[in-house]
Formats: sequence, C-alpha cells, structure tokens
Amino acid sequence: MLKAEYQHRGKVPQDVIEAVELTLPPLPAGKALIKVLAAPINPSDVLTLTGEYGMLPPLPAIGGNEGVGRVEALGEGVSNLKVGQTVLLPVGSGTWVTHLHAPADKLIPLPDADPQQLAMMTINPPTASLLLSQFVDLQPGDWVIQNAANSGVGSYLIQLAKLRGFKTINVVRRESAVAEVKAEGGDVVLVDGPDLHKQVREATGGAKVMLGIDAIGGKATDHLAASLSEGGTLVNYGLMSGEPCQVSASSFVFRDVTLRGFWLAKWFQKATPAEQFKVFGELTQLIAAGKLKARIAATYNVSQIKEAIAAAASGERGGKILLVP
Amino acid sequence: MLKAEYQHRGKVPQDVIEAVELTLPPLPAGKALIKVLAAPINPSDVLTLTGEYGMLPPLPAIGGNEGVGRVEALGEGVSNLKVGQTVLLPVGSGTWVTHLHAPADKLIPLPDADPQQLAMMTINPPTASLLLSQFVDLQPGDWVIQNAANSGVGSYLIQLAKLRGFKTINVVRRESAVAEVKAEGGDVVLVDGPDLHKQVREATGGAKVMLGIDAIGGKATDHLAASLSEGGTLVNYGLMSGEPCQVSASSFVFRDVTLRGFWLAKWFQKATPAEQFKVFGELTQLIAAGKLKARIAATYNVSQIKEAIAAAASGERGGKILLVP
Repeated sequence: MLKAEYQHRGKVPQDVIEAVELTLPPLPAGKALIKVLAAPINPSDVLTLTGEYGMLPPLPAIGGNEGVGRVEALGEGVSNLKVGQTVLLPVGSGTWVTHLHAPADKLIPLPDADPQQLAMMTINPPTASLLLSQFVDLQPGDWVIQNAANSGVGSYLIQLAKLRGFKTINVVRRESAVAEVKAEGGDVVLVDGPDLHKQVREATGGAKVMLGIDAIGGKATDHLAASLSEGGTLVNYGLMSGEPCQVSASSFVFRDVTLRGFWLAKWFQKATPAEQFKVFGELTQLIAAGKLKARIAATYNVSQIKEAIAAAASGERGGKILLVP
Repeated sequence: MLKAEYQHRGKVPQDVIEAVELTLPPLPAGKALIKVLAAPINPSDVLTLTGEYGMLPPLPAIGGNEGVGRVEALGEGVSNLKVGQTVLLPVGSGTWVTHLHAPADKLIPLPDADPQQLAMMTINPPTASLLLSQFVDLQPGDWVIQNAANSGVGSYLIQLAKLRGFKTINVVRRESAVAEVKAEGGDVVLVDGPDLHKQVREATGGAKVMLGIDAIGGKATDHLAASLSEGGTLVNYGLMSGEPCQVSASSFVFRDVTLRGFWLAKWFQKATPAEQFKVFGELTQLIAAGKLKARIAATYNVSQIKEAIAAAASGERGGKILLVP
C-alpha cells in the first residue's frame, strides 16, 4: 500500500511530494476499507502543493481531493454498503493512495460505469455547471464566452452548454489547441489577443454575449470583458496566468460590466443538501450515460506521483492526468 | 461675449481649447438668455478634451457640462421664469461661455444661495450620493472605503457619509493630502500602498467593510479589493491613473468580492424623473443650507480657459477649478 505525501510546500510541486509506504490501522467501526480505482490531479491540487490555493491542509498531508474506489471490507456497524460496490469518495479525503479508510456514511454508491470518468465528477463538472447557472439567466440560443477552453472545466462547460442549448465562444492561448476544442463541440474557437472583441463580433455577427468565464487572469480578463455586451457579467474562477485580473475601467464604467468570482469550496459550504443533490444527480446521470466526459491525457500509479504531478502542472497536455493505483 | 471652444481632441487638453468671440442670434421662442454665473471643470470634462471619455460630442464643441446662470431675457411664450432668477443649466449645455440660449422648460429655478456651490451640483454630488446608496445597503455605523478621497467626489462622499451616519476610510496618494481630508471630516485617512489592507484592519479594529469606491484603477483597485471584507463590493467610477483596474483573482474567487462600475450618465438615462427629483431635491437643500460644499481652488474667466484647464488637469490642486465668467 502506498500514499503520496508532502511534508512542506514549494515552488516546484513535484519536488515536495513523494510516494511512501502506507500502513493502515485495523478498520474502525463505521468505516469502510476502500481500494482507490481512480483519482485525478486538478489545477487546485497543484496550487495546494505550491501553497497558492485559498485553503491549505495542515502538514504533513496526503494529496488528492476527489476519486472513486471499491469497497473491500466493512467496519463494525456498517450496513449501507456492500463489498465490491463502487463509491464516490468525499471531497478532500486524500485520494492519492492505493487504499484508505473512509466514513461509510459519506460514501456515495455509484452506478456501474467507467470509474475513471466518475472519479473526475466532484470538482470540474459542478464548477462548469454552476458557472453556467449561478450568475446569468441564460436561455437556449444564448452565447457564453470562456477562456482556457481546452482545460478540464472548459471541456465540461462546452458539453453542458450544448446539452442546455447555449452556444459557446471558446478562447485558447495557442493555435494548436483550436482543433481539439472544435472537436469537443465548441461553436466558435478563437485564439486570445488584444483584438478578441473584434474576432467575437465577427464570429457571432454581433450577437449579445452576457456571460464571460475567465480562468486565466491578467490581460486575458480584459479581453473577455471587452468582448461582453453592455451589462454583461464576467466570472473568474481560476489563476492560470498567476497574474491579477486586469479590466479597463471603461468596461466597468461605460459598459456596466460586473466582475465576480466563483469558488466551488464556498458553494459546498453554502448550498443546501437538496441543491447539492440536484447538481450531482444530473451530473452522475450524464457521466454514467457517457454524455459528459473528459479526455484523459495519461494515467499513472501512485509510485509515479512525481511524474504525474509534473505532467499535470504542464500547460501543454491534451487532457486530464489520473492516478490509477 | 465669449465661448471656450475646441475643434479637435488631443493629449494636452489645454492645447485644444480656446476662448473665442460668441455671437448669439436673436432669442428664439421658448428659450431664455442666460448669463453664466459659475461653471466647474470636472475630470470628465478633461477626458472629453483628450478623447478618453465614454461619450464624446461632435466637433466643433463648446466645453462644460454643468453650471448656474441668471435669466437675463425671456423668449416669446416663456412664462415659467422671471428675469433675474438664478437657474441650474441642463447637463451638457456647453456651460463654458459668458452667455447662452437655453430651453426654458429645462431650467431649474434655484434657491437664493451661493451660485458657485450650486454650479457644482449636477455631477459630483449625485455621483457620491448614488455610490453610497446603489450598491450596498449600508446602515448607520457601517464603514465605507474610498480612494481619491481628496477629489471633488471624494469630499462630497465624506460629507454625505457623515450626514447618513456612515464612517469613512479615506485613501490618498500623498502624505501632504492627509491633513485636508481629515479636516473635511474623514474618520480614517491612509496613504495608499501594498499594505493598505493591514492599515485598514489596524485603523478600524478589524471592522466589516462591505463597500469600496475606486476612482483610480491600476494597483490602487487591488489595494481596495484586499481591504474589503468577504462578500464586499468594489465600485469603480473613475480613470485617474489611466491604467486598467487590477484585482488579484484571490480577492474575487476566495473572498467573493464583486467589482462593479458606476457612470452617472447611464443613471440619468435610466432613472425615472421621480428618482432624479428625490436625489437632486436632497442635494439642493443640503447645498443651499451650507451642509454640503466643495473647496474651490481657483476661479477663472472664460478668456483664461487654457490656464483654467491646465490647473484642473493637474493632480496637485486643493479643490475645484471654476469658470466665473
């Protein structure tokens, strides 16, 4: 048994984490022994290793915030699960391990479907879903613009927008990413630049664009703001450039653009169980039915954690990095 | 009779405008001949000369957006005014003149009070008033933070906040401006810098600050955003630094700060006559009673327009520049 653990944080994320032997105590009452089947490496995981994320666990810590596992054994008093059942692990469990003990009442039984796709369900898909629903009341036929369109959230957002009848303008930072985003179903795919607002106007015939979604910051934020229609809302949810968001005052002042932020961790704190159930119920069905999925760039064992993190931290990969213990 | 006219726009605002002879045609029916008593030079007027404002009049144009005058003669059919009455000129009339013809039904009779103070009534005081009321529902005892606290709007905002029972944190860019802002009634006055949020926490004992008001942009926006409490709203209304607003994504994402813009011209378009009457009724009373006023740095004749504009465009003046024809 192995776990991917870090004792401190640092600039080069793969340098601070390593795979070490894991010894589990006897299985306590109320818990289940889980064999992890798949656990993704998200951008927020990398920022947690570098210390740049908004919420940092105490050290030493085991990496990994989401994942899917199979029940191998049940502790005393556990009656809601069966050995062999595939379950969703609770967010923040430290999923970059081969095995763990998890509280039985927090494990959500999953339908019989691809565990790698289900393992990516708790973070990126609800982020994309909520970005599309929490800020602007979009109607079928409406346009939405996003950057980092070839990211995990970006890809889910394209698919969910299509399912809801919205049209997407997708912005990427390099020409080589255009084809893959078109293949994902993006209606319009553009390369970022100071003329983005003109490109958008031409591509959409000057249509209204009331929602913009920014994962990058820096000048990229300003380019999206300039591409929105008057009264539009721009939502930032990511820090990919490492630079503060820049927006010309003329977008705010003369064109009445609002800039907001979205953080899934806060939504988890504030949303009622019913609201959470509604969002995850829809996403589970779509993923199990194969209607919502993410590209996987590569899979690694826990013993390869350093290579896996290095691959996840690189901007040039064509899909998610997963640990498949 | 003189008018301050410009034929083109350019970087140095005093270079594009000049005082020229004004010849008025015979007074048309429905209009009144007005002798201008006082007309201020606002930051937005300077940006109109340089071409950086959000709304630019066709050329050639006469400068000046607000002012007060005295009725000298009445055109045929005008019965709602008397010769000798002091009136408020409609916004955008081109007030940097010694005389003008104005539509009688757009002239608002004013109480008997200082015409120089009344001349500054239509732009800065409603901006300050609406910034305090349109974005966050402040209660007596609540804190608000603003930068450019020694500007025209900044000074009105301090006075209006005090009248409504709010406490102000005032940010200035130079130590030499601290004393004058304290003298205006600012509760806390701080010099801007990357440690602003720490200064704010110390000065207020960690009190909640839910509204920030930014007239500067650039890094100054980020300093205000970092000084707001979680869930706070930052409103930009000005372009003083000439730089785009910068806000770190962590303020938006992790601390749920919203960035908005305010433009008085848009409010004029959207507000009902009743809403406008409510705002201006209150401001007229306060100004006539001497409870709300602006410092005046210097007054000039229309013939001195170039000196007047140069003085208004300089950041170092200690109050408003007025034309007093």
